[in-house]
Formats: sequence, structure tokens, C-alpha cells
Amino acid sequence: MSYPRFLSFSTSTGRQGFGLLVEGGIVDLSVRYAGQYPTLREVIADGALATLAERHAGDKADMALTEVSFEIPIPAPEKLICVGVNFPDRNEEYKDGQAAPANPSLFIRFPRSFTGHDQPLIRPPESPQLDYEGEIVVVIGKGGRRIAEKDALDHIAALTLCNEGTIRDWVRHAKFNVTQGKNFDRTGSIGPWLVPFVDESQIADIKLETRVNGEVRQSDRTSRMIFSFRKIINYISTFTTLVPGDVIVCGTPTGAGARFDPPIWLKPGDVVEVEADGLGILRNTIADEA
Amino acid sequence: MSYPRFLSFSTSTGRQGFGLLVEGGIVDLSVRYAGQYPTLREVIADGALATLAERHAGDKADMALTEVSFEIPIPAPEKLICVGVNFPDRNEEYKDGQAAPANPSLFIRFPRSFTGHDQPLIRPPESPQLDYEGEIVVVIGKGGRRIAEKDALDHIAALTLCNEGTIRDWVRHAKFNVTQGKNFDRTGSIGPWLVPFVDESQIADIKLETRVNGEVRQSDRTSRMIFSFRKIINYISTFTTLVPGDVIVCGTPTGAGARFDPPIWLKPGDVVEVEADGLGILRNTIADEA
Repeated sequence: MSYPRFLSFSTSTGRQGFGLLVEGGIVDLSVRYAGQYPTLREVIADGALATLAERHAGDKADMALTEVSFEIPIPAPEKLICVGVNFPDRNEEYKDGQAAPANPSLFIRFPRSFTGHDQPLIRPPESPQLDYEGEIVVVIGKGGRRIAEKDALDHIAALTLCNEGTIRDWVRHAKFNVTQGKNFDRTGSIGPWLVPFVDESQIADIKLETRVNGEVRQSDRTSRMIFSFRKIINYISTFTTLVPGDVIVCGTPTGAGARFDPPIWLKPGDVVEVEADGLGILRNTIADEA
Repeated sequence: MSYPRFLSFSTSTGRQGFGLLVEGGIVDLSVRYAGQYPTLREVIADGALATLAERHAGDKADMALTEVSFEIPIPAPEKLICVGVNFPDRNEEYKDGQAAPANPSLFIRFPRSFTGHDQPLIRPPESPQLDYEGEIVVVIGKGGRRIAEKDALDHIAALTLCNEGTIRDWVRHAKFNVTQGKNFDRTGSIGPWLVPFVDESQIADIKLETRVNGEVRQSDRTSRMIFSFRKIINYISTFTTLVPGDVIVCGTPTGAGARFDPPIWLKPGDVVEVEADGLGILRNTIADEA
């Protein structure tokens, strides 16, 4: 089965928009719904992904994909929360003798720490330790607080991918918290597009793989996640009210560059691909900050 | 010298607004500048705090303070970043034998984890360990990246106070990061108002005090901060581009309830006051979640 794909984009004149992928390019929904939906966040809040997909699937493309730059799908979510240490062997990688954690480790990234598909990830002059982390992303549709695990999947509107790019030495810069190493501008990416979530089979046991210059570095299946999608939504919504458009990045398999001996950091010219069944390929090159 | 005071508020009909405090109440600037400034964030982005203060200082109040509820001054900043462990003795409180850190510990809170002045802080049913942390807040005016320490104060638009309320046991819920214990809905507060920043003397060596039911629990001076305001702005802007309206919560003195033996948690009916020279008193009661 093939699902619709929604993307956010910018044009060469700097216009921000969003649209539906069709044969030959993009149906520009941001022009068609200019008064109603400023971004995909408002489409999701209105529960309108399915309606728009059905209504415009047969439309002729307004522009080719090559005419736009991909942007992160939800440009300004209220929240963007990341789950750390969520695949087997990742906890052991820390070699600190601690048992697997009882609750998910969570941190927050600002949207400006990400760029879109096909844009370069930026290696800052402060550190050569730019590293990849391929992850599955869920976007919240129906908001809520203390969402029960049994109902949690009903709160997902869409799925996408993330390269949760990290400056490794800055993650351990301070006494607590990974904030600074996770928030260098444009060190990560989200995309390429949103796939509406309609069925648990889309995420229950899919393959998630990260490649660097074609070499497989991370490969695992979502069925092996320590904290399930249901548990993540339940746990986060215990302390904060989730709202439509909230973005949750669900954790990376073992095999980041930091885990090699010696570590292998990303360098300018490298190509990183994050792929998952049914969600496409999120591809980024690496560039030094201009 | 007395500085102008800007507040954000909501009315009994649910209207969100902002205004200038004058004798007898509030000059409603949100009505006067409805087309231009949706919130104080846009006033700050336009560098207009001083102009508005001067222009409207002599206006007659449109409403009494008792007619509105205080809201957090910047309702939707792009970023809200908190500094941990930034006063002497706080590092020692952790009793982990580690030397004082070389860089500030940083974490992120969502605006919905805060409420305004005079609103109750909410103790959730998940934990009785609601604790206070009185802090100074700087609001960024001029944005920038890699801001030099010598220029850092030029990037501050305004000051306010924060009770960086925390659910203590949830701070250590997971392997890394304090995210969940710092982000329960409405467990902290920011306010009561913004005071425009014009001179270093406003922050260089001011007293910061937190009282619970009138008893002094925290009292220190900003001159003793481990990481100065200049250093904090310099360090944060190394990894992320600061923009107008960004909120930085600068750390709390020793003496939170967790440090007593046994710990003393906040309970319904308690009154917490955070006060700093020239910035006013941020006062909140405690209530159980309805």
C-alpha cells in the first residue's frame, strides 16, 4: 500500500509553503489553503491530512521537486521532544554499568537545530565531532494529557524520519543534560515528508537503517525499541499536554560514529541516509559552516 | 530610579493582551497596537519597549490590575533555556565529588510548564515533590550567534523573575536529562512583568531572594553567579542563534526544599515569593491539580 506524502518547502524567492507529492512534482496546498492553513501544523490540528490527500491526489503538479528546497515538515511545533537510549545495546554502549533505565531519557531540540531533506548538515567550527543518529518521528494529531497506552496510537497524525545529528563532545560539556550538543544550528534533519498514520502496521515492526556513503552503520527494527511508541506518548503526556503538531523523535539504534574505536565523525562531502520501511529516505550531505 | 514595567495578561473573557503599568492600573497596549504587535515578543523584536514606555507613561489606566490575570510575559518565545547549578554551594549540594563545572548545564522548558504571577503553581497527582527555585530571567532583544562576552549585555531587552518550579523525583527519572521533572504543566512561574534593561547596574550585583510563607529559603547576589550573564549569552549563542524574545532563566541560589533534611516540599496553600532588587516580587500559591 502506498500512502500520501506531504512536504514543507521553500522556493527560490524565499516563499515558505507546503504541498502534496504527486506524479511529476508537488501540488501546492499552501496557495490553495492560504487563508486556512499557514503550515502543515494547522492542517494536522484540523485533522485534514486525509481529506486533502484524497481531494488533491489527482491534481496536476504545480511545480517540480527540483524547483524547491525541502524544509522540516512542521516548521514551528509547540514541542520537539527526543527520546534517548531506546534500542537494545545502546544502553550498554555507555559502559557505565547501569541497568537499563525504567523511564525514557528525554531532551528537547529547537527546530533551528534541524534542516530539511537534501540540505547540508552543518559542521560548526567548534568541534569535528558531528555524528548521525537515524530515528523514527511521530507527529501528534489529537492532543491530550495522560494518554493511556491503549489509546496512544490514536493521537498520532503522521510519521517521518530524523537524522538526530549531534555534536558529541558538547553533549558532555556540562554537569547534566545534553542540550548544547543537541542544539547546534542545522546539525540534524527531519523529513523528507510526512506520511499520514492510519495503521499500527506502519510502525509496529519496520526496519530503520542509517547509511554513510552507502555503508550501513545502523540497522534495527522498531519492534525492538525499549520504550514503545505507545509508552513514549503515554509517558510524555503524563507531565505535559501534547498538542497537534508536536514532534516526538523516538530514539536511534546502536552504531553511531561515536561507538567506533576510534570514533568516525562525519566530514564535509559525506552523504548520510536514514531510511525506514514506508517512510522514504532522508538524505543529507555534510558541509562546513560557511 | 524606577523603570517601566510591561505585563502580559488575560481578561475574564479570555482575551490575551499586554500593557504598561501606570498609576491605578494598566494601559492596554495590545488594543492600541493590535495590528502591529501581537505580543510583547514582537514589541521587543521591533526594539520598541523604550518608545512605548515613554509614549504611554502618562496615559490613564484602561483597567485595574485586579481585572486581569497575569500571564507569562512572553507567551510563545522561540526558545526558553534554563541554566542549572549556577550559584556557589549548589554544585556541592549534589555531593557527587565533582569539581565545579567548566560550562553551564542547560535545559529547556516549554512555556506551558509556567504560569503567570498570582496564579497557582500546580502540584500534579504523580508526585508530592514540588520544589521552588527563584531565578533572574533575561529576555533577548537583539539576536545573534557567537555573541562576544563584551557585547553580550547589548543583546538583553528586558529582565524578569522566575520560580523555576520542579518535580524533584522526576528530574532523576531517567538516565540523563532533567526534562520531565522540569516540564510538568504550570509547575513554575515567570513574571510579574518585564523591566526594560538599560544599564548593567540592574543585574551586576542585585539580591535574589525566595521566601516560602514569609520564611527566607534562598538568598544570594547575582555577583556570585558561577557563570555571569555575559558568559551565559556568549555560551548559548555559540551553538544556537538567539532571536528577539528568547528567554534565558539564569540559575538558582542554594536552599531549595530538596536540600533540607528531610526535604520540605511545597504543599497546597503555601505562598512562594521570588524577589530581586528592581524587578519586583513574583508571588504564587500552590494548589493541587483540579
